[in-house]
Amino acid sequence: MLTYSFTDIGSDTLYNHLYKCIKNDILSGILAPGSRLPSKRSLAKNLGISVITVESAYGQLVAEGYIYSLPKKGFFVADISQDKEQQNALLSSENIRLSSGETSYIANFSSNQTDSENFPFSIWTKLIREILNENQKELVTNPPCGGILKLRQAIADHLKGYRNLHIEPEQIIIGAGTEYLYGLLIQLLGFDKNYAVEDPGYDKIYKIYKKHQVACSHIPMDESGIIINELEKYHTDVVHISPSHHFPTGIVMPIGRRYELLGWASKSPDRYIIEDDYDSEFRMTGQPIPALQDIDVLERVIYINTFTKTLSSTVRISYMVLPKSLVNRFYKELSFYSCTVSNFEQYTLARFIEDGYFEKHLNRMRNYYHAKRDYLLNCIRESKFSSYVEIMEEDAGLHFIMKINTTLSDREFCMYAEQKGIKLSALSHYYSLPTNVEHYFVINYSSVQEEHIPEAIRILHEIARKH
Amino acid sequence: MLTYSFTDIGSDTLYNHLYKCIKNDILSGILAPGSRLPSKRSLAKNLGISVITVESAYGQLVAEGYIYSLPKKGFFVADISQDKEQQNALLSSENIRLSSGETSYIANFSSNQTDSENFPFSIWTKLIREILNENQKELVTNPPCGGILKLRQAIADHLKGYRNLHIEPEQIIIGAGTEYLYGLLIQLLGFDKNYAVEDPGYDKIYKIYKKHQVACSHIPMDESGIIINELEKYHTDVVHISPSHHFPTGIVMPIGRRYELLGWASKSPDRYIIEDDYDSEFRMTGQPIPALQDIDVLERVIYINTFTKTLSSTVRISYMVLPKSLVNRFYKELSFYSCTVSNFEQYTLARFIEDGYFEKHLNRMRNYYHAKRDYLLNCIRESKFSSYVEIMEEDAGLHFIMKINTTLSDREFCMYAEQKGIKLSALSHYYSLPTNVEHYFVINYSSVQEEHIPEAIRILHEIARKH
Repeated sequence: MLTYSFTDIGSDTLYNHLYKCIKNDILSGILAPGSRLPSKRSLAKNLGISVITVESAYGQLVAEGYIYSLPKKGFFVADISQDKEQQNALLSSENIRLSSGETSYIANFSSNQTDSENFPFSIWTKLIREILNENQKELVTNPPCGGILKLRQAIADHLKGYRNLHIEPEQIIIGAGTEYLYGLLIQLLGFDKNYAVEDPGYDKIYKIYKKHQVACSHIPMDESGIIINELEKYHTDVVHISPSHHFPTGIVMPIGRRYELLGWASKSPDRYIIEDDYDSEFRMTGQPIPALQDIDVLERVIYINTFTKTLSSTVRISYMVLPKSLVNRFYKELSFYSCTVSNFEQYTLARFIEDGYFEKHLNRMRNYYHAKRDYLLNCIRESKFSSYVEIMEEDAGLHFIMKINTTLSDREFCMYAEQKGIKLSALSHYYSLPTNVEHYFVINYSSVQEEHIPEAIRILHEIARKH
Repeated sequence: MLTYSFTDIGSDTLYNHLYKCIKNDILSGILAPGSRLPSKRSLAKNLGISVITVESAYGQLVAEGYIYSLPKKGFFVADISQDKEQQNALLSSENIRLSSGETSYIANFSSNQTDSENFPFSIWTKLIREILNENQKELVTNPPCGGILKLRQAIADHLKGYRNLHIEPEQIIIGAGTEYLYGLLIQLLGFDKNYAVEDPGYDKIYKIYKKHQVACSHIPMDESGIIINELEKYHTDVVHISPSHHFPTGIVMPIGRRYELLGWASKSPDRYIIEDDYDSEFRMTGQPIPALQDIDVLERVIYINTFTKTLSSTVRISYMVLPKSLVNRFYKELSFYSCTVSNFEQYTLARFIEDGYFEKHLNRMRNYYHAKRDYLLNCIRESKFSSYVEIMEEDAGLHFIMKINTTLSDREFCMYAEQKGIKLSALSHYYSLPTNVEHYFVINYSSVQEEHIPEAIRILHEIARKH
């Protein structure tokens, strides 16, 4: 008969202690496979514990497969010998080294992180509280795969007023960031299609296509944007562009090229244009450039935008507007997916837009970034650094191009800058192939602290002067 | 000279009105391509408006490519004729019909939606408020791609206490739902691998693999779970299973089979096991079954779990635990992705776990579902329906199997039930191939209202009795 001590079990329960004792005896081989365990009643009597306790321990062992029961015969030890040796064959793992966070810079002109002071915390807190009080039932009700209708309606209204886009809320698909939506689009448009991105361009987009193992080419640009003939050359089906404000060059695609592009798309039913409108809200002068989607009567443009730029990069809400021809396909093939954004944030954002806070926030942010850009440009202009630089494409979005008169290579300049605490990206860095574009730097100013700007310019000037 | 009226422009700005007038004239052909526009100064004088206004309108037209400027020569109308006809070639789109929501049932035994009453609203509200007050800087700081460390630490601690898993927070990757994580895993493990799922199984998982265009087979099960020989037959590299509580059969994989499976994985460095532990928290009797991950010394098990089951299906936070051997690969290849869960919810959930609320919530929910299950089983037992049914696998998770003695086919029974307001899924429905498993139904009781249970049983009894 099995005998275990119950005198020193600490805070463990009786049943759990018994379970562990028997399990250990099975693992160590003391209880051999096939051997019969005492009946619940007799073991209970022997150990001076209740039958229920033994029953619980046996139940757990049965559930885990250590023992099995045969009707009217009792409980037996299972054969778990196979591959058990593996348990001891410990492998040493590579050590996991992880930087806990980002390096801190005097000024990081390479980051598109938003400025923490500008998130509308008090409004957001108020709205969340209202939602949590008033919408409990909706908050825990599964939304349609495209997102809650209230938010999609709010976005449709916003796009109408702000971008002159006339779309149905059902065309809008909400997702946790544009990166997620790109993956969804590949599933919708096909893994067998030829994708294309702009060259130079935002490297991450290319990476996402490559990680999905789809064919993806880099299409060269001229001063009006992507070159249409090159699309033909690469047999492109789907082209991913940012016509309103190209990253990093800042090019705004003129209307002529836009029509050419739509003309290209019209030539085959499989051709689509993904219009990434990532920072059109921050155009500095004039009104926003009309979206490609707006002049697309062929239903070949998929419009994508995000709240990560306008609210905070840590709020993961983006959306795409599918042409009507793709909406039905989406619902048919991909509506089994759950929406990736939590209801709590969808309802809060919906109210934020509906109640007019979003528009106010955009205006405030536009002024804020406008002022920051002006301050930065002014600091440059009034510094000795000004004789080394030329500023381009400063009218749109949250970055501009700065040409620096230096004999250093782009790599060297960035390296010296980094050594002094200034993170900088060269335009050449965004080309897929070696390029003769040199001494152009992309200046993202959205997250740079104003008080650090003079020091940053002083450092850049020193590097330019010394070399 | 161009002449436009400014008398009836409503709330439009002068510059915007002028911009639209000129644009319309270009689009309609009144202003021919190549024709020269009046100088800013002379047009301003002619129209009685300021030069600045004309400058703004011209600037907008240049930005959009309708006109262009030649140094010292002035502004000219661009040639936008190409493909312009397309604008008029309106295509009729299929109508988009969308059901606004789900049909409402007396009882939906097919849904895994959580019960709205049980979300811990007051605690959640309190924590969100605290976070929004105290952590503003962290809330708008980009997290590592795997999620904020505080949450990953909280999950690691929880898994240690609750599941006896000893893991580093860095092994945990947070994502917006398990569906998203599956996609990420395909990118990590490879599109060229052979994936496998359980048959019967949760259809959505198979769909996700197919939508990613990877090879995916259905592996038959016996009473201990997936059959290892079949994995070999299909040349499986990656097998996706739920060993702690298989859906829909409820099978708990015994320890012997677990070791066999680990043995299978050990035979090639490309073999991995995805352990989907989706509802282990709701095991009804005994303690939770140890995770496969717990006995995996070969580093071949990827553990996945979610808060959508334990909190609410509308809170999109899931996580996976990568074996250390995969962690480095993940950071090297996929860390360019942003985390898909917003910081706001990550910090709230981290505090929810840290402060012990999650454990309390789990206990409360376990009792709640335990009571609901008992009530449902009791209602069946005490009803006339009891003579038609047999209940199986009721000890784990939020569903059990009910065998109904009927001459109806599964499809017919479900159809009759649906006509009477009861949504039911047959076990046969979860098999990929036609099966002779008949008259077994999967009873998800998590979202069924207790007050509707007697009526639901009465209806099911009536269907069984009549046929």
